[in-house]
Amino acid sequence: MDHAATTPVDRQVIEEMLPYFDRKFGNPSSLHSFGRESKIALETARRRIAKALNASEEEIFFTSGGTESDNLALIGTALANRKKGKHIITTKIEHKAILSTCEFLKRQGFEVTYLDVDRHGLVNPGDVESAIRSDTVLVSVMHANNEIGTIEPVEEIGSLCSERGILFHTDAVQSFGKISIDVKKMNIDMLSASSHKIYGPKGVGCLYIRKGTKIEPLIHGGSQESGIRSGTENIASIVGFGKAAEISTKRMKEESERLARMRDALVKKVLEMPNSYLNGHSEKRLP
Amino acid sequence: MDHAATTPVDRQVIEEMLPYFDRKFGNPSSLHSFGRESKIALETARRRIAKALNASEEEIFFTSGGTESDNLALIGTALANRKKGKHIITTKIEHKAILSTCEFLKRQGFEVTYLDVDRHGLVNPGDVESAIRSDTVLVSVMHANNEIGTIEPVEEIGSLCSERGILFHTDAVQSFGKISIDVKKMNIDMLSASSHKIYGPKGVGCLYIRKGTKIEPLIHGGSQESGIRSGTENIASIVGFGKAAEISTKRMKEESERLARMRDALVKKVLEMPNSYLNGHSEKRLP
Repeated sequence: MDHAATTPVDRQVIEEMLPYFDRKFGNPSSLHSFGRESKIALETARRRIAKALNASEEEIFFTSGGTESDNLALIGTALANRKKGKHIITTKIEHKAILSTCEFLKRQGFEVTYLDVDRHGLVNPGDVESAIRSDTVLVSVMHANNEIGTIEPVEEIGSLCSERGILFHTDAVQSFGKISIDVKKMNIDMLSASSHKIYGPKGVGCLYIRKGTKIEPLIHGGSQESGIRSGTENIASIVGFGKAAEISTKRMKEESERLARMRDALVKKVLEMPNSYLNGHSEKRLP
Repeated sequence: MDHAATTPVDRQVIEEMLPYFDRKFGNPSSLHSFGRESKIALETARRRIAKALNASEEEIFFTSGGTESDNLALIGTALANRKKGKHIITTKIEHKAILSTCEFLKRQGFEVTYLDVDRHGLVNPGDVESAIRSDTVLVSVMHANNEIGTIEPVEEIGSLCSERGILFHTDAVQSFGKISIDVKKMNIDMLSASSHKIYGPKGVGCLYIRKGTKIEPLIHGGSQESGIRSGTENIASIVGFGKAAEISTKRMKEESERLARMRDALVKKVLEMPNSYLNGHSEKRLP
């Protein structure tokens, strides 16, 4: 009942990870054959994630998870674009990984507008439009909420940001692998995803960054992940994340129907009780 | 021959990690029994790492690896102490995780002094002393070098920093689990360690932070790790890191003697060849 918090790792995912703990343990930065073998595994995982988002492989950057991805997206673009402006727009119902990062950026001299949502938890794209100023550099609105499951009008918000040349980030930690995502169609410049919400291991996630987006790294060092995210790559977990993404994409239709049936049956029964009501939107919600 | 880059995961470590992928998969932040079980595993690992360093459990903060630990130590204390001063001292032979982070801090308005080393790769504590200014807030000198294995006079440097109220960080990624470390005796305020150099999994490490040290988080969010490092804890890997630290501490004497014998035999043979010489210090070096 609490799989929105975390999920067990799928047996198939564990099987795919295991060789990378001891037999194929090379450091992808090493030039010898142990390293090359890991490098290939890394790129296979990257291709699987890119495919799930309709992105290119070189637009996927592995991180230690959804929280780091959110931090990298916000801090990285705020710092890289601060000469353009210091205003950021987000919502009051974001995950703490966004809200706390915005508070940090405020302490660094940025201004943040927190938009309200309606009684179903929906953000009004018109409110985003009204909040945009000449110094707005970034809009961050989550794809689906982690507590009430409401799915936000990300495509519309992406479109109006794109028309105005403002970067658009979405925290898709709760939606990735559960409902279909197309970063091109949805006008998304940056998207955070996590492995452990989709039967992959904990401690790994990614940030999709549209080609050409100006961003500063958050973690500096050996220039792994094209210099955007340094640190020896967590190969076994990245391999697991890639496999989990592949499986969830393949099973998405069948699995979302199965979950929606169970959800609807539960909601129906609970609503028969006096003084009960449904939190979130009745249709625009995660299965 | 390249285990300073990375190591395979020990069989015993893998065995200890496995249950945390699927059977014990709770999120330690969850209040229910699945979460509590993970929380206990997390604290066992923390106790094992603390013991290996002669630190207290509440002084150990898990990260995604040595690079993140170095970034957190430098950026975190630089930001938290910038009213006190903006000068940092380090050496020219640090790992890129330190050097690149220093370059980032320079772009944020900090000043960095890079100390030279002698022909054996040794830092002279007198040079550290001479470089200290009234606005110096942090000194970072690695414990053992990742290319030539030279062990630096960390205890002396720690002592002179401590006398002057300057924070002292050491990157112990190459020494942790290989030679004995006592953060109290060595006057260390912050120490970075990594799991995958000691037969633990990749993608996990820690930063020891002496109680009372002022530090800003690098990654903001759900306030995990006492608010110093947000993000769902990577339980399986943390469990593996704890086990690897326990094993390496237990085997340290025997293992370092075994490695030193092999090293010395190799060095002896190579030096018999014409025009060959030993890089690094002849005695003050890792086994």
